[in-house]
Amino acid sequence: MTATILRALGAFITLALIGGTAVQADEGMYPMSELGAVDLEAAGLAIDQTAIYNPEGLALVDGICKLNGCTGSFVSGRGLILTNHHCAYGAIANASAGGTDYLAEGFSAADLADEFPAVGFTVRITESYRDVSAEVLGAVTDAMTPLERTRAILKKQKEISLAEEKKFPGKRAEVSEMFLGKSYVLFLYTYLKDVRLVYAPPEDLAKFGGEADNWIWPRHSGDFAFMRAYVAPDGSPAEYAADNIPYEPKKVLQVSAAGVREMDPVFLLGYPGTTYRHRPAAFLDYMSTVYMPYIIDWYGWQIDLLEFLSAESPEHHLKLAQRLRSLHNTYKNYLGKLQGIERLDLLQQKRDEEVDLRMFIAADPVRREQYGDVLDRLDEYYRERSESAAGELWLRFMFRSPEIMRTALTVWENAMEQAKPQSERESAYMARNLGQTLDRLENMSSSFDPAADRRVMAELLLRAPDDPSGSAGVLEGLIGPENAPAVDNFLNGIFASSELMNLEYLMAAMEMTPAELEELRDPFIELAAGLYGAWLAQREDGRRRKGELDLLQAALVDVRREFLGADFVPDANGTLRFTSGLIEGYSPRDAVWLTPLTTVAGLLEKDTGIKPYALPAAVRDSIEAGNYGPFGSEDLDGVPVNILYSTDTTGGHSGSPVFDSVGEVVGLNFDRAWEATINDYAWDHSYSRSIGVDIRYVLWVTWKIGGADRLLTEMGVAP
Amino acid sequence: MTATILRALGAFITLALIGGTAVQADEGMYPMSELGAVDLEAAGLAIDQTAIYNPEGLALVDGICKLNGCTGSFVSGRGLILTNHHCAYGAIANASAGGTDYLAEGFSAADLADEFPAVGFTVRITESYRDVSAEVLGAVTDAMTPLERTRAILKKQKEISLAEEKKFPGKRAEVSEMFLGKSYVLFLYTYLKDVRLVYAPPEDLAKFGGEADNWIWPRHSGDFAFMRAYVAPDGSPAEYAADNIPYEPKKVLQVSAAGVREMDPVFLLGYPGTTYRHRPAAFLDYMSTVYMPYIIDWYGWQIDLLEFLSAESPEHHLKLAQRLRSLHNTYKNYLGKLQGIERLDLLQQKRDEEVDLRMFIAADPVRREQYGDVLDRLDEYYRERSESAAGELWLRFMFRSPEIMRTALTVWENAMEQAKPQSERESAYMARNLGQTLDRLENMSSSFDPAADRRVMAELLLRAPDDPSGSAGVLEGLIGPENAPAVDNFLNGIFASSELMNLEYLMAAMEMTPAELEELRDPFIELAAGLYGAWLAQREDGRRRKGELDLLQAALVDVRREFLGADFVPDANGTLRFTSGLIEGYSPRDAVWLTPLTTVAGLLEKDTGIKPYALPAAVRDSIEAGNYGPFGSEDLDGVPVNILYSTDTTGGHSGSPVFDSVGEVVGLNFDRAWEATINDYAWDHSYSRSIGVDIRYVLWVTWKIGGADRLLTEMGVAP
Repeated sequence: MTATILRALGAFITLALIGGTAVQADEGMYPMSELGAVDLEAAGLAIDQTAIYNPEGLALVDGICKLNGCTGSFVSGRGLILTNHHCAYGAIANASAGGTDYLAEGFSAADLADEFPAVGFTVRITESYRDVSAEVLGAVTDAMTPLERTRAILKKQKEISLAEEKKFPGKRAEVSEMFLGKSYVLFLYTYLKDVRLVYAPPEDLAKFGGEADNWIWPRHSGDFAFMRAYVAPDGSPAEYAADNIPYEPKKVLQVSAAGVREMDPVFLLGYPGTTYRHRPAAFLDYMSTVYMPYIIDWYGWQIDLLEFLSAESPEHHLKLAQRLRSLHNTYKNYLGKLQGIERLDLLQQKRDEEVDLRMFIAADPVRREQYGDVLDRLDEYYRERSESAAGELWLRFMFRSPEIMRTALTVWENAMEQAKPQSERESAYMARNLGQTLDRLENMSSSFDPAADRRVMAELLLRAPDDPSGSAGVLEGLIGPENAPAVDNFLNGIFASSELMNLEYLMAAMEMTPAELEELRDPFIELAAGLYGAWLAQREDGRRRKGELDLLQAALVDVRREFLGADFVPDANGTLRFTSGLIEGYSPRDAVWLTPLTTVAGLLEKDTGIKPYALPAAVRDSIEAGNYGPFGSEDLDGVPVNILYSTDTTGGHSGSPVFDSVGEVVGLNFDRAWEATINDYAWDHSYSRSIGVDIRYVLWVTWKIGGADRLLTEMGVAP
Repeated sequence: MTATILRALGAFITLALIGGTAVQADEGMYPMSELGAVDLEAAGLAIDQTAIYNPEGLALVDGICKLNGCTGSFVSGRGLILTNHHCAYGAIANASAGGTDYLAEGFSAADLADEFPAVGFTVRITESYRDVSAEVLGAVTDAMTPLERTRAILKKQKEISLAEEKKFPGKRAEVSEMFLGKSYVLFLYTYLKDVRLVYAPPEDLAKFGGEADNWIWPRHSGDFAFMRAYVAPDGSPAEYAADNIPYEPKKVLQVSAAGVREMDPVFLLGYPGTTYRHRPAAFLDYMSTVYMPYIIDWYGWQIDLLEFLSAESPEHHLKLAQRLRSLHNTYKNYLGKLQGIERLDLLQQKRDEEVDLRMFIAADPVRREQYGDVLDRLDEYYRERSESAAGELWLRFMFRSPEIMRTALTVWENAMEQAKPQSERESAYMARNLGQTLDRLENMSSSFDPAADRRVMAELLLRAPDDPSGSAGVLEGLIGPENAPAVDNFLNGIFASSELMNLEYLMAAMEMTPAELEELRDPFIELAAGLYGAWLAQREDGRRRKGELDLLQAALVDVRREFLGADFVPDANGTLRFTSGLIEGYSPRDAVWLTPLTTVAGLLEKDTGIKPYALPAAVRDSIEAGNYGPFGSEDLDGVPVNILYSTDTTGGHSGSPVFDSVGEVVGLNFDRAWEATINDYAWDHSYSRSIGVDIRYVLWVTWKIGGADRLLTEMGVAP
């Protein structure tokens, strides 16, 4: 009997023994306010609610943080943060600007002094939350137009945040919309601004499998890195300074070298980004027939271009790596979603539910009165969005795909916004956020690739609709295939004459008024200014539409709650959530069963010596030598590499700790399986699986490959 | 808990309960003479040896037959044969010449009178066997050269066969070499020549998955067909005649609609073609570095050409389909083998064993004397083969790849051979075989594709080595890229002037003497005659080498037997064999477990509406309607389609019945899994898996899709 059968056997027998009281994963990314609705014991957990979240004392949530768009865990009393390599990517790339390619070689700080400032990285730790729905919705009246409504809500959200921040200097406050147009929660965060890079494995380990394996199980990626949060010597949050000291988190998460086995219960805490499960069928229709096909087409074109350029020279390769990574990630995710929507016939499922919902509404005069037109109006809403999509998406990508245009827009918009009072500004230009905006610009300018931007702009002009949101005046004679020679001339001219790619010039421009900028006569800023009217109109239109959608969605959620006779949790919105599940495999198709732990043996199997499957020689040697220390699994062959589990996750859960039943860290979430790309729209136990790095692999690599014994000692798991 | 887990759970628990006495599959394609060495009880079988083979009475082997290069089962008292669709392919294609495309639509004879003659198909049923090693080897002396040795053995084999056939008129006798140069067995066969096509499913079912799924598990192919053997009204074997009657087999195999479950023991009887497990490391080196790369390159080129032509017109498509199928099959098999050799480091394994074997030989003076130079001489033998391979392979494919050249060679060689006495002729031209040779020519001529042959010949001339086996005189000015224009002229000329593609002309040519053929001045026959000297020399050289290899291999087998202290069974050689195993899955790579039964649900999953995954609408409807009758599985979702098992099989096992533990037919072997393409060189329980059609799918399709209820009644399993 092979080891594989024995392993599978062991797992299944365990499952059998649990018998009638079998633990099972369930849908739900629960906000802390809904934790009470979770039966933790039935989820197989051996801890109670207050161990997870406790407003009266310390709990696990005090040991996790939001790290830009990702999640991180405090795994030592000195502010050591465990997160994903792909979350720390920008910091590693930045550190490499000094000459050593830390992406390729990995980064390992010898001591605290050697830890590298991660410009643009901030840490938020949820301190408390409070429902402010009444206050927010108190700002609107029935007489308001949809646009006025949205404006009033945004203004009120900002006012509440600013007032709260006044009460708690140094903290960040944010009002998050939970159910669209319905409920609002004020979150208060500890906010740290000095984050440093501590350890990152070589990219050949961190991205082992590369784009080929992205969104795929079985997986063998070492997608982890260590960072550290610093504060001023007096313990207060501060910008980077050489004499800052490590932050002392209120709660330290204990990593467990014991790891997990198949069918072990696990749970995650993290900051999932966005899901759309409460949206109507019309939304899914719009996404799957209009929006996603557009993105797949446009991102696919850009991927072809950027890969062509990257193959041409190492210089392009370095500059374009992160851009390509992000394009690939979305591109493949959307392909998976479209496949999932079709496989599950999800649109039809939603439509069928709505047929029943319509009958439910029609069956009662009060409901008919209250909700009679909700579904029709949602259909109409998305019909309208479909019609205006081509122009809107074009303008959006004109200001996003070429980094130079994104920069020019930021410069121009900053000048416009700085003239307004704080609470009326767009969020990125409020004093409290401007530092981050400048960091972002600085990071972006280090990867400017004029050759790429020039071709992207040429393609956008070629593809432009006749009158892109009323901007025809600005682009007259530059749109469509017939004007290709003029476009060529135009682009040659502006790329030759602009100085916006010069960082000093750019930073100076960020201090100027609109009039001063006009005097600069920089062609990109001029182009951004020329298209800015259309941009503003589009944004206003978006807010008007949000005003409409909010009311419709709020009504939809209310009537569905009545219809289903069940409560449900709000869609993910970047705020703190809990989700539980099991370490378990799944069947992606007939006669195929994927087991939930991969091992270093699989690294050897996949190793071809050629990227993305080029295993560093030192790793191969260590595996073949069997130097596993305490991190080898007893029932698997060697060190487990990645784990698979049935929790409910989405983007933003990147870097979330995977906890075992007693709340120790056994893994690090970084991805989902192919079938689970559909999670944003629907979760199902049969196919929704998330992927994490097994903590034993994190520890083994840090120790054996990185030689960073000091970190293991710091975490209390030195071998 | 999903159905999939429950199923897996059930299987694994069964396995666990068996515990210490677990049934396990083992290597070995046992000849009937070695059946005594098999522990049938340990293999999980509930029958004894005499139920399988019984020289004193009836047994299962009396119910199976060799059907050309495949195996078939007699599943009714009226000569009904169950075999693979790909084994019956030629017959279905032939039947389609009348206008209806039975490949596409499937073939279903309404009654006996409607069953279609399968030209060129013959049936052999093993009646008895007898070891004739002493007699055969008595014909050789130590003084003989290797060539003389081979000739003497071949002559003696033929003499023994002919003498036996004289004793048993109407039967076929054949002496098969078991261990090279060591042991010879005379087999006596019942020999039937009137075979007819009864039922074949549409190709979209039979080849579902096509080349994409070939050699792949999970699989969903309905690769089965029914044929029937006929005899003269008096029961004697006879050529096709309208008033022939169905053959009454001595033993009828019972099909079992109960099917199988995971971990059920199974066994196969069949006529496996060729394996090479007793060959030395040098052989594997030659195969993996010279022979297989050559074939992969040359077949790959032809596949590209033939697919291009097939896409051009339906006419090409029809003519080239079987040729492409065969090229693809070998091409992909060799890719799998090369991958397997590398994955298992098989060459190094063999070399390591030989290092030990050399030490074993060196350690004893008698062994040193007897075997001291065997391995060196085998190395030398394969070194020589490697050196001469380019010229030999070129000439072989000049006479094989263009069908017109293959035909011309047959015509010319026939004229040469008919001048010799029967026992000295090449086998194909002996009176007893000439009918089959003519059938083959007739079949081939129906698929002549001059455009394909012309391009294949041009490419061969372009690739020809400088002096292809001494044929330079004939091809002067036609070899290599520099002569491309001359080749063009030459090919235009010969394709325009030859009449060999005319069947009547061809059949007349098969009656002529060499002198008469020369008078015809057919350019292909002239070219074949011109290259025939080189061809003969190559064949003689092959026989000389076989004489050398026989002695070396015989010695190698002897000393390995001593060395390993174990006996082993001879390599497969197209004679009747037994192999046993279990219905069981396997792990092709880290974290992937393939379960051993696929279902009709998987057909729906794979169905794209586009070949090779175009499920006929009637099948989709029947599956969705759940019309499974008694053929649905209780613990799977619907009708099982294909099964996977750990028996030891190779080519020639196509069509073999898969028996359950009591000897009822539960499946029909047709392929191996990707990792098991290496079976010809090595078998291992961890990856060697064979693939069969589940009998329940055979019965369900025949009933629900084919409407051939009469066949189910005939087999005693009418629903």
